[in-house]
Amino acid sequence: MEETLRQARENTIQGLSLISQFWGFSKGMGAIYGAIYLSPDPLSLDELVEQIGITKGAVSTNVRHLERLGLVHKRIVIGERKDFYVAETDFWKILKGILQEREKSEFDRALRTVSESLELVGQASPLSPEDATLALFYQKRLHNLSDFFKNLDNLVGALLALENLRSGTQRTLFGKNNEG
Amino acid sequence: MEETLRQARENTIQGLSLISQFWGFSKGMGAIYGAIYLSPDPLSLDELVEQIGITKGAVSTNVRHLERLGLVHKRIVIGERKDFYVAETDFWKILKGILQEREKSEFDRALRTVSESLELVGQASPLSPEDATLALFYQKRLHNLSDFFKNLDNLVGALLALENLRSGTQRTLFGKNNEG
Repeated sequence: MEETLRQARENTIQGLSLISQFWGFSKGMGAIYGAIYLSPDPLSLDELVEQIGITKGAVSTNVRHLERLGLVHKRIVIGERKDFYVAETDFWKILKGILQEREKSEFDRALRTVSESLELVGQASPLSPEDATLALFYQKRLHNLSDFFKNLDNLVGALLALENLRSGTQRTLFGKNNEG
Repeated sequence: MEETLRQARENTIQGLSLISQFWGFSKGMGAIYGAIYLSPDPLSLDELVEQIGITKGAVSTNVRHLERLGLVHKRIVIGERKDFYVAETDFWKILKGILQEREKSEFDRALRTVSESLELVGQASPLSPEDATLALFYQKRLHNLSDFFKNLDNLVGALLALENLRSGTQRTLFGKNNEG
């Protein structure tokens, strides 16, 4: 491979590692996605180990995580016993999947935590005047938090509904569909 | 403090630690924000050490990070030499601040990485037929990535513009303004 092409690949892999880390994923996930994304052919775990320079165990764990998030897909190669991977290139589809599944469960957990706390405050009794004031304060703050999570959930829902229209009139906002 | 009120506070602090970690921040940041959010009075670093059970150094680092993100504010208490902290309770304001500053710089970095890589591919020469094909493939993929980052940036910009209208007609979508 020509040297500047190799540099371009390295630079992209490095950049995606940092972005991955920034968003709360591992650096390895970004690096592996970058390597697969910039490979014209499906890549095996061994090829990834060679290209990224991390252990096979780490590659395997990160690839499984990427697969769950819909960022890479397993591809069967006839006559090969190894698993090969290709990149999902429709980033809106990926974003939508992450928002729908991963973030959805987080919203639910966040709301559950707040509800549980509110329930506990409701069970408190009998209270000293000082604790009664504190209980009211907790209720106000927890309701505020709960409202925020619910509204954020609604906003994400509204965005996903918008994204569903992308194939139609939303092309201007979301840009053209991605190549395969 | 009454036992169920203490449990409600613990539960909220635990929940916010996990949410914080999920979003790529430290667990300590979520825990500290939770403790300050559920305190009727401004809290000092020493009180936070006592409530959360992590070292003063860790509390100090996390509080500074929370302050930068606009999640907590320093509050001067007359006659006290220590710093005290109160929670920002307008979550939309916090989210907007994070999107505007933190994510903005990430988009810029992501776009810069892709531009650099595209430049490198452009500099490659002279190429074997195989490398020429690879260079075209890299250009296609990198343009695809660049388009996505630009569109995502536009989408966030559109959301922020929507948020600017919140005080007016957007109350239904975003919920009522938060209490102080």
